[in-house]
Amino acid sequence: MTDPNRLTATEAARAIAAGRLSATDLMEACLARAAEREPVVRAFVHLDPAAARRAAARAKPGPLQGLPFAVKDVLDTAEAPTGYGSPIWAGHRPRGDSAAVAAAKAAGGVVMGKTVTTEFATRHPGATANPHNLAHTPGGSSSGSAAAVADFMAPLAFGTQTAGSIVRPAAYCGVVGFKPTYGTFHRGGMKVCSESLDTIGIMTRSLADCALAMGAMTGRDYPDPEAKRDRPPRLLLSLGQAPEAAKPETVALLHRVAEAARKAGAEVVEAPLPPALLLAAELHPFMMNMETRQGLAWEYAEARPQISAVLLDRLDWAGGFPPAKLGEARRAAMAARAAFLDWTAAFDAVLTPSAPGEAPAGLHHTGEATFNLLWTLLYGPNVTIPAGTGPGGLPQGVQLVGRIAEDPALLGTARWVQAALEG
Amino acid sequence: MTDPNRLTATEAARAIAAGRLSATDLMEACLARAAEREPVVRAFVHLDPAAARRAAARAKPGPLQGLPFAVKDVLDTAEAPTGYGSPIWAGHRPRGDSAAVAAAKAAGGVVMGKTVTTEFATRHPGATANPHNLAHTPGGSSSGSAAAVADFMAPLAFGTQTAGSIVRPAAYCGVVGFKPTYGTFHRGGMKVCSESLDTIGIMTRSLADCALAMGAMTGRDYPDPEAKRDRPPRLLLSLGQAPEAAKPETVALLHRVAEAARKAGAEVVEAPLPPALLLAAELHPFMMNMETRQGLAWEYAEARPQISAVLLDRLDWAGGFPPAKLGEARRAAMAARAAFLDWTAAFDAVLTPSAPGEAPAGLHHTGEATFNLLWTLLYGPNVTIPAGTGPGGLPQGVQLVGRIAEDPALLGTARWVQAALEG
Repeated sequence: MTDPNRLTATEAARAIAAGRLSATDLMEACLARAAEREPVVRAFVHLDPAAARRAAARAKPGPLQGLPFAVKDVLDTAEAPTGYGSPIWAGHRPRGDSAAVAAAKAAGGVVMGKTVTTEFATRHPGATANPHNLAHTPGGSSSGSAAAVADFMAPLAFGTQTAGSIVRPAAYCGVVGFKPTYGTFHRGGMKVCSESLDTIGIMTRSLADCALAMGAMTGRDYPDPEAKRDRPPRLLLSLGQAPEAAKPETVALLHRVAEAARKAGAEVVEAPLPPALLLAAELHPFMMNMETRQGLAWEYAEARPQISAVLLDRLDWAGGFPPAKLGEARRAAMAARAAFLDWTAAFDAVLTPSAPGEAPAGLHHTGEATFNLLWTLLYGPNVTIPAGTGPGGLPQGVQLVGRIAEDPALLGTARWVQAALEG
Repeated sequence: MTDPNRLTATEAARAIAAGRLSATDLMEACLARAAEREPVVRAFVHLDPAAARRAAARAKPGPLQGLPFAVKDVLDTAEAPTGYGSPIWAGHRPRGDSAAVAAAKAAGGVVMGKTVTTEFATRHPGATANPHNLAHTPGGSSSGSAAAVADFMAPLAFGTQTAGSIVRPAAYCGVVGFKPTYGTFHRGGMKVCSESLDTIGIMTRSLADCALAMGAMTGRDYPDPEAKRDRPPRLLLSLGQAPEAAKPETVALLHRVAEAARKAGAEVVEAPLPPALLLAAELHPFMMNMETRQGLAWEYAEARPQISAVLLDRLDWAGGFPPAKLGEARRAAMAARAAFLDWTAAFDAVLTPSAPGEAPAGLHHTGEATFNLLWTLLYGPNVTIPAGTGPGGLPQGVQLVGRIAEDPALLGTARWVQAALEG
């Protein structure tokens, strides 16, 4: 029998429901895997095996009963310290769980531990390595969550995304990364930096797992992504606002996926970005950094020496613009959301790269969100699916982007594309 | 000379800048007033005179230097406990200041103490009485902030609004209440219940004070509301989505204000609400309560016996609807925001009641947000200005509502209306 920690969430949930696996045994297997791999992967910033065992033993009944969750350390947990990736918050013990963690627990999920985030989910990296090649970054900011799921330490993980912090690390680590529609998870108890952008999402090893977990936590109907469609999807192919940033292997991958989809019956049309989307993408850094500067006002005033140089540089940069610039960025984003509906009206999803290429070498930098920031600000769902390996032998993903609230359908479209790619 | 605590913020700031008043003397005067009145008004849930004195002594230089701020107890403060109006959070000591409090301090403001909020800024009231008649509610949920400013304990206070929690108590207590454009203040370190609605704002004793504080904290240019306009304003008169809820004295007041404005040269036009606004108002309770249920997921799961019956009833009610209902409410609100721009295109502001009537008798209920919830969900600025007293001798206000981002202009329009009313 497969080691329980290697089961997908769907498989594990089925085994637990049938009495063939206990929540405790599943947690033990995940902890054993972590004990073996953590010395080199370093996905967790806090992992207390005794606490994880206790949590597994008292998992609530529900569709996720007994499934371990790795929780990005920007989400408060009542039973584990929450440090937001910053020395300013080291040892912080929240009184309550964040709303997202509470939703996971209410559905039967079990908090296994807290995963490494870059500083406040911005750029300064943590210690996590890419489990596929320890000399490469796992991506960020949800670094530890991506690595933990990819390396079979946990079947499910929470991440958050402001530019590309779920999709990019998931692609780099070869797992499914899902940023649902903005506002799907309540951000209570999250360290929010950009109120207009920050979105909580999840990482899994399959699209079925993603649908299972999203349905269980939101109460919404997520049909099985394997379900047969009444027609092949219509896809809009786009390299986004900076096509020159895609490496040759990424462009080749995208066209390979498009070809496979066409062969399986999909319509795939390449179309230029509407100007409203170009403008919004250009203004994304203002929205993100000006709001982050507001959100970190206390840290900036009282603990500046403990802010990294790279973040301080961004905050100082953001402070150089008048508030009207933020208003301009917000208006551009609103206009882009409307333009996106028109642009995609005849399509099921946009097919686009998940990242410029494979995970870059080195742990000092988590890569660029060039292929994510536009889709994040449009507020609809974004999902990356594993799509083979690149020339360096590291995973690559492709991304599908949907319209606001069409999350379950996007997972079905993504599964169809994945099946087409698998032949 | 006037007691320093009776100075407006503008007057006090000028006196401090000129060296005629010290931050310490101003704080002493405010503390003396609180010592005298708190036994019956009970505006503060936490007031530590020694800490307030220390804070005044080290006020930062800036446009609000030395001005005491009363802070609603849903906003985190590093130097005072923050209980969110709930026994579940009693004695909670945040590590950092909320972003709004940090913004106030960066501009020179001084935290005087924490003011009474209803439970999580929802309905279950705190102990505060209306300073104009102790047998009447001050309104809610920003009960203590309204009472503290009205009763000359502090010149400035923070409130928050999800339906009518700034405008209503400000009107009941006879002060200026300002809910700026949604997203003006970052909500980091606030106990957010409804992510789509919760908005941080302020209470003051004059519109000039409001402009001073908003400009200082946001970095935005707020011209003096006293400045001469190039033309009288054009006002759209509306009783909102439930005109029958306005008491006769409120209807009479609104028409008196309209008449005074006309006499002073304004164009005032009464127009029916567009259907998109009616629909959005009808769905407001779903958005508010379904999101609040998400936001309080941890409290609901782990501390239900400490939630009030009235809130539990709302949370259970909200749990009875499918997530699609929340999506419907959010879409309706978006459509209403667009419709509002068309409806008001030829006008400077909407003129509408601040509340159904005077503050109701009794402290068991803080009144209804009937005349506020629609304007809150439209995301533009809302301001209430004192407009005399009602038949019971308690204050009444009238409200002006503007378009997103037109906050400074709205304060100018409100001041023009106030001057017209004063004759």
